[in-house]
Amino acid sequence: MMRITKEEAASMLLSMDNILIFAHENPDGDAVGSACALCHGLLSLGKKAAVWLDGIPKNDIYLTEGLMFDNSFTPEHIVTTDTADERILGAGCGYDKNVKVELAIDHHFSNTMYAAKTYLDSDSAAAGEVVYDLLLEMGVAITKEIAECIYIAISTDTGCFRYGNTKARTLRTAAAMLDCGIDAGEINRIQFETKTKEYVALEKLAMNSLETYFDGKCAVMMLTLDMFKESGALECETQALSSLPRQIEGVFVGITMKEKEEGFFRISVRTNAPANAAEIASHLSGGGHPMAAGCAFAGNKEDALKAVLEHTENQLRIAGLL
Amino acid sequence: MMRITKEEAASMLLSMDNILIFAHENPDGDAVGSACALCHGLLSLGKKAAVWLDGIPKNDIYLTEGLMFDNSFTPEHIVTTDTADERILGAGCGYDKNVKVELAIDHHFSNTMYAAKTYLDSDSAAAGEVVYDLLLEMGVAITKEIAECIYIAISTDTGCFRYGNTKARTLRTAAAMLDCGIDAGEINRIQFETKTKEYVALEKLAMNSLETYFDGKCAVMMLTLDMFKESGALECETQALSSLPRQIEGVFVGITMKEKEEGFFRISVRTNAPANAAEIASHLSGGGHPMAAGCAFAGNKEDALKAVLEHTENQLRIAGLL
Repeated sequence: MMRITKEEAASMLLSMDNILIFAHENPDGDAVGSACALCHGLLSLGKKAAVWLDGIPKNDIYLTEGLMFDNSFTPEHIVTTDTADERILGAGCGYDKNVKVELAIDHHFSNTMYAAKTYLDSDSAAAGEVVYDLLLEMGVAITKEIAECIYIAISTDTGCFRYGNTKARTLRTAAAMLDCGIDAGEINRIQFETKTKEYVALEKLAMNSLETYFDGKCAVMMLTLDMFKESGALECETQALSSLPRQIEGVFVGITMKEKEEGFFRISVRTNAPANAAEIASHLSGGGHPMAAGCAFAGNKEDALKAVLEHTENQLRIAGLL
Repeated sequence: MMRITKEEAASMLLSMDNILIFAHENPDGDAVGSACALCHGLLSLGKKAAVWLDGIPKNDIYLTEGLMFDNSFTPEHIVTTDTADERILGAGCGYDKNVKVELAIDHHFSNTMYAAKTYLDSDSAAAGEVVYDLLLEMGVAITKEIAECIYIAISTDTGCFRYGNTKARTLRTAAAMLDCGIDAGEINRIQFETKTKEYVALEKLAMNSLETYFDGKCAVMMLTLDMFKESGALECETQALSSLPRQIEGVFVGITMKEKEEGFFRISVRTNAPANAAEIASHLSGGGHPMAAGCAFAGNKEDALKAVLEHTENQLRIAGLL
């Protein structure tokens, strides 16, 4: 429940041993990278430490090599990275709700302060950046292995330095990781320039489903259960697709409708200013940020589309775009 | 014909006035950004200077505002940026073959040393990085306008910091540009995250044309005249598409065949090691780098495809992939 400083978090970690590190469920590169970087750092100080992550993306599994918890010690301290809310600590990762999280290391402004102590730096683009600062404070030498974890954490959360959360400091931290000898070009090729055959097949179907409305100011992409079946793509591969409708020139509201199960849709809303994604989503009991929000809809495809278009039209009017 | 140091190039520029700056034809972000950054720098020192660029991409035109040559002075010195060979100085940009280029500022290893003096730093990811170093040497204060030019130059040539040519120094230079107050998130949104409706239409057709061969080790994308006609996309918009076939998991040779005119194809070959793109292209009288090469083919679509697949198969065998 208490926010602490970097110095306090560092001395807390230095005083611990037998540490188990969790991150949020469906971990992305920042969750995996920040947890593994911290784990490497603690191990380098002669401590017993491990990570416990569930459902790691294929491209990131190698980062956890030798770090996954294998019952070789009895955890005495639970630390999380990149986790804004304890409810998103995956059950599959073995997190027992009765165990208290002692320290949360995070960059999410929305952190619910679920841990006994929280070191939060919401100015950081990635939890990996927060962990990096902490490791330096703890006197950990940044090895090539740690640098690779931090680099993947930061590049994941910044869209490889494309997004507006990339600050001068972010780029300098990434530069310091390159100084440690990592092959960033090859890392990026694997992380950002490789698509599975199944993803390409789904992308093709998704592109064909693209429709525009309201004079091209709204674009909608549909991902149905049939498309997943036909392409063989996994749902975790579809994150990048959500940004596509908004990328089309002239589009202010980009919508991706994903059929999660028969008669149930997850709807992702991405907007360009002045259109407000959170306002559209809020009318369908969802929420989020002004530029990226989400909601759900129970019903068939036609009704889901009708509902989302109705609120999009209202929002376009409110924003003076129609 | 003579290679000079940064210090010599700086003092040369400081001694000049009435300077006209050229860059290569079909200028990309690095050509436009490096030329405009240099021009801003020279103007800030009270000199008369202008750029002359032809066929500037829509997204970059704003950088040249107030910098384009308008006959308000008589050029006494010709300087180029980002131009490896005088043959690629666009005729349309008003370059008269009888006029000698006095100074070339470049980062291409392949620079032909066509200029009287050449300041070449082939360790730099972009000509914009070379110009930045030069401006600092000349004592130019880096304004927000200059920073935007340099940032666009560097981000263009590094695929927004994705490619292997991105060094720690590149990231630190970009960080320094952010310190000057540029809105990198918005710049990147426009440069990397916006697609015209016509491009999206072409992408859809191109995705549908994707075929794989040799057990998925080769992927071919076809861009026909009909597709350009149907989508309304411009050829200059298709550069990003060429990287797509190679991105598919398991693909070693990614091929994009672009029908330039009835019965004439431009073929782009992109490979992942150990497959060698230059060797495939060389069999069709083309050339390039080990990972990216190109060639042309006169004939119909079927014959073009047959020829390129034949040499791809050979290369896959040589590389031990078949």
